[in-house]
Amino acid sequence: MEKLKKYVSVKDEDHFYHQGAVELLIFNFLLILTILTIWLFKNHRFRFLHETGGAMLYGLVMGLVIRYVTKSADVESGTVYECEELKSGPSTLLINITNQVYEYQYKREINHHNVNGHQGNAMLQKMTFDPSIFFNILLPPIIFHAGYSLKKRHFFRNLGSILTYAFLGTAISCIVTGLIMYGFVKAMVHIGQLNQWEFHFTDCLFFGSLMSATDPVTVLAIFHELNVDTDLYTLLFGESVLNDAVAIVLTHSISIYSPKENPNTFDAAAFFQSVGNFLGIFAGSFAMGSSYAVHLTKFTKLCEFPMLETGLFFLLSWSAFLSAEAAGLTGIVAVLFCGVTQAHYTYNNLSPDSKMRTKQLFEFMNFLAENVIFCYMGLALFTFQNHIFNPLFIFGALVAVFVARASNIYPLSFFLNLGRKQKIHRNFQHMMMFSGLRGAVAFALAIRDTGTQPRQVMFSTALLLVFFTVWVLGGGTTPMLAWLQIRVGVDPDEDLTAKAASQSASNLDKNTTKAESAWLFRIWYGFDHKYLKPLLTHTGPPLTSTLPEWCSPVARLLTSPSAYGDQLKDGDTVYIINNDELTENCELSAHVPVPAQDSTGSIQATGKEDIQEGDLGLGSYKLQLQHIASQPQKNSLA
Amino acid sequence: MEKLKKYVSVKDEDHFYHQGAVELLIFNFLLILTILTIWLFKNHRFRFLHETGGAMLYGLVMGLVIRYVTKSADVESGTVYECEELKSGPSTLLINITNQVYEYQYKREINHHNVNGHQGNAMLQKMTFDPSIFFNILLPPIIFHAGYSLKKRHFFRNLGSILTYAFLGTAISCIVTGLIMYGFVKAMVHIGQLNQWEFHFTDCLFFGSLMSATDPVTVLAIFHELNVDTDLYTLLFGESVLNDAVAIVLTHSISIYSPKENPNTFDAAAFFQSVGNFLGIFAGSFAMGSSYAVHLTKFTKLCEFPMLETGLFFLLSWSAFLSAEAAGLTGIVAVLFCGVTQAHYTYNNLSPDSKMRTKQLFEFMNFLAENVIFCYMGLALFTFQNHIFNPLFIFGALVAVFVARASNIYPLSFFLNLGRKQKIHRNFQHMMMFSGLRGAVAFALAIRDTGTQPRQVMFSTALLLVFFTVWVLGGGTTPMLAWLQIRVGVDPDEDLTAKAASQSASNLDKNTTKAESAWLFRIWYGFDHKYLKPLLTHTGPPLTSTLPEWCSPVARLLTSPSAYGDQLKDGDTVYIINNDELTENCELSAHVPVPAQDSTGSIQATGKEDIQEGDLGLGSYKLQLQHIASQPQKNSLA
Repeated sequence: MEKLKKYVSVKDEDHFYHQGAVELLIFNFLLILTILTIWLFKNHRFRFLHETGGAMLYGLVMGLVIRYVTKSADVESGTVYECEELKSGPSTLLINITNQVYEYQYKREINHHNVNGHQGNAMLQKMTFDPSIFFNILLPPIIFHAGYSLKKRHFFRNLGSILTYAFLGTAISCIVTGLIMYGFVKAMVHIGQLNQWEFHFTDCLFFGSLMSATDPVTVLAIFHELNVDTDLYTLLFGESVLNDAVAIVLTHSISIYSPKENPNTFDAAAFFQSVGNFLGIFAGSFAMGSSYAVHLTKFTKLCEFPMLETGLFFLLSWSAFLSAEAAGLTGIVAVLFCGVTQAHYTYNNLSPDSKMRTKQLFEFMNFLAENVIFCYMGLALFTFQNHIFNPLFIFGALVAVFVARASNIYPLSFFLNLGRKQKIHRNFQHMMMFSGLRGAVAFALAIRDTGTQPRQVMFSTALLLVFFTVWVLGGGTTPMLAWLQIRVGVDPDEDLTAKAASQSASNLDKNTTKAESAWLFRIWYGFDHKYLKPLLTHTGPPLTSTLPEWCSPVARLLTSPSAYGDQLKDGDTVYIINNDELTENCELSAHVPVPAQDSTGSIQATGKEDIQEGDLGLGSYKLQLQHIASQPQKNSLA
Repeated sequence: MEKLKKYVSVKDEDHFYHQGAVELLIFNFLLILTILTIWLFKNHRFRFLHETGGAMLYGLVMGLVIRYVTKSADVESGTVYECEELKSGPSTLLINITNQVYEYQYKREINHHNVNGHQGNAMLQKMTFDPSIFFNILLPPIIFHAGYSLKKRHFFRNLGSILTYAFLGTAISCIVTGLIMYGFVKAMVHIGQLNQWEFHFTDCLFFGSLMSATDPVTVLAIFHELNVDTDLYTLLFGESVLNDAVAIVLTHSISIYSPKENPNTFDAAAFFQSVGNFLGIFAGSFAMGSSYAVHLTKFTKLCEFPMLETGLFFLLSWSAFLSAEAAGLTGIVAVLFCGVTQAHYTYNNLSPDSKMRTKQLFEFMNFLAENVIFCYMGLALFTFQNHIFNPLFIFGALVAVFVARASNIYPLSFFLNLGRKQKIHRNFQHMMMFSGLRGAVAFALAIRDTGTQPRQVMFSTALLLVFFTVWVLGGGTTPMLAWLQIRVGVDPDEDLTAKAASQSASNLDKNTTKAESAWLFRIWYGFDHKYLKPLLTHTGPPLTSTLPEWCSPVARLLTSPSAYGDQLKDGDTVYIINNDELTENCELSAHVPVPAQDSTGSIQATGKEDIQEGDLGLGSYKLQLQHIASQPQKNSLA
């Protein structure tokens, strides 16, 4: 370690005046460039590069420029000082240098091997912002939006399959990836690439769990634009939303409970502790997220002040995330279910103005956050200072990711098809296999801890896999759709009606249709419709008619006057589900004051957006709600 | 300086999992509390505490709790280490402590006297966030919103007076405050309170300039709610918006060009350099802000994708701020005029959906940012670690601020009344005098640099003055209005018509009415209407009719096809101004799909909002646009 004495002035003259402005400007510039590119592509119906891919590309170029054009002006680079007086690192260090006291803030512990010449490049440092910003600020709006825009009708029809893919599939994917990576790590040890640092099986599992978070934002955007078969869309969308949550909790559980004593043997106690931990964290986060969502009930008469309402809505949803994180639970899961619950109950209590405001606000925040993250991923390839690219590990990861995806989709689809009336077609399975893109969540999980060498290898590898999947798989979506002959230009409404008709023609037993929606959820839905909705919102049947006789004083108190009009039909849950959705959708459509192209435009721009379901009403409503009617080029690919 | 060796572990177990979440949660919690309080107050028509005052109060309580409940767990507090090897502080310090390398990031240079026991309280440290966050993230949306919601009609009618108050008045206020403070500083030196640190005249002027930024957000909110006389409202609103910009540039100029050699003598060269600097920075920032605003012209056909449009709009406006800061200009001025220009030109090019989205987005961001800042101000009283409260200085500042405001308002009003047809009434002058609240901008300017003792005294004093003015003056607005017998419950439209009628009755010469709007701006307005509007937007007369004959090929190319319908009436600028406003307002109203109370609610909530002008159309439009019609309690106070 050198002991150089250099005279460097930290504060330049302008320091006071543009702290942080340049870095933010760079991001703004990249985002503006991205938006203009998207616009150009959309205008020319060019679908091989999605906005996120574009953002990543621009980030990459900018990172290259920053790294090699802005020279490290700080001569202190890589100099390590000995401070004999200190025995450990305090969070704030006051240092007396030539009779001036300087305050230094603890950033991180770094390994000796990480000390390099780029360490002191102030620009690189500023551009690599704190991972906690990802988790606390950029990720919540994306996940919340996914939950908030999740439309229940198609989702619940495929709920069993979605849950299977999300829970069982992610677990399979995690374990398969872990095992394959462990094989590759063993191979690396064998050829001597891994002599200086250790790589345990739990590390491999950790990598497996973070790589199991799929994020097919590109694919879904294209599906949406082309109106691909609704079942396929819903399966993919539902899987990707829940799968993020599962992967995050899995990563969390693995990182906490790894058997420290002998990391390579299987420790049954630790394993079951991990499983228990997983279930506990998942349930806790779910409960916390949902409980935050029901704060804004029909009794808070905030409707008169839409600004306050929107503000409260926004802050409560964010608080759901933050509280869960602060309590040691998983914020992402909390905010996801907060979004779902908000959409289900709170949304009905909002004033029409607030309904629109919140929808647009979250849509906008989702759009910005997503593009910032993808820009940042591009930047990180060159600005992150401690990359370790190991070719064998990267190759192994590439193989593992595909094998894991395959062993998730194909076997599970086979078993699901045994129970499903509406089979998941082989080509759909191929498409789902192909749509295993990795994105923001995998990246965020990987960047959270890059202190040790195994974690740095994982981070660099995860980053490359994100690039690869977004550009190659994302870009190949349209050709793949054509090649697999998957229907495009499907009107989701007609599609459903047609299916229902064909079913009722071939099978007159109504119960079959019922069994097709998840039976467990039908019970829940009935309970929800009879008790929760009337309690928490102004809709649904009056509690006086659903609760037993002896509860009637309480029931009368809790029932909204407007609920009495809507009397309960006896137990027909299919009717309830459809009717419920219909009411909501019509309400939504009535408050979207935009002409046809605009609405479509916004859908195209946001990827996971689901507004087109505003059009899913019964036939009689179709004349009124025609803002999707002018959808261009039907069946252009099929 | 002690040389203790303590063993402190920086990273607790949960460190990895809730970085930053707790601090954000505290802010969220405070904001939720504030919103609920506002709602309660609004419901009970309680006007003595505005939302900003409430936010400050909650922040104060929370700050108290954080300071005295969370004990400083870090034993290293106030320990200064000697590092003999270093001669200056590098931006990143790598320190080898017991064979582990820790990375420390440069935070600031601190004076020896600032080293105290609270230095190491991690919680306090985390809550006092970087001043650059104020400047780069929280302030821009507030200022932009002020510019964007600035309605031209009343503003231009009072333009001369507003400019006089904003430029001349702020300069007077700055100098008067500076002189009075210099007197108090001399007195402090006399009684021996100022022996250890120096306080120059330029420091006093600096304090004067930062205390000249008035922010009557509370007063304006109440004015809006009660429909106080429009002229008074416009004068105050216009003054406060421009005055922030002037005060910021003034502070900047003073902080750069202080005669370093002998700070107490008057240096004519440095003075004129400062004046030149002021003008240069102001003009440069103005130009930069406006140039960013015209990017989204009618030729960028982004209307089909409202999400992209909104995104681009947002990013461009923010970039105006950041570019100006990065270029050494003043971002606030740039973003203010960017907002004004966006509202004037770009707004007309937006799709109807985007018009609403941008309005609501900026309204929401303004609301959040404002409340965060006021919460933070409350927090800062207890969490900021280097307060210096000097009673004499604080008393001096209180006196200075009032004397300065008086010597701004009364003499200038006197001179303005010499030229104005519509005199500024004596009671109006008292009300303006009374509305000299200090807020976010003064605080942000003061917190930007708290390195030296004079700056710390200024910061602590500025903070107390903000508290005092917001709570005492803000709370006293309603009684003051009643006491000064100022008209409330005025319909802005009727008001204007009545005034116009009384004028045309007493004076048939049309030119007098014309002369009342600033004559300089009438020339500009004509130019704008004839050339700029047709060039940049789809409205206005076609360029083919306004440009000379020989330009016609270019003119035809640049004119929007929709412009040909609107032929130029010959030179009647009054008609143009009114007509222009009318078109805009009707357009706006037509796209606000909210019922009566909602719209009013949002106005009340945002303070500086100006939506009610959407109703300022001619009589014939009044039947259609009745969303303000149900305004409660007219003339309740008069």
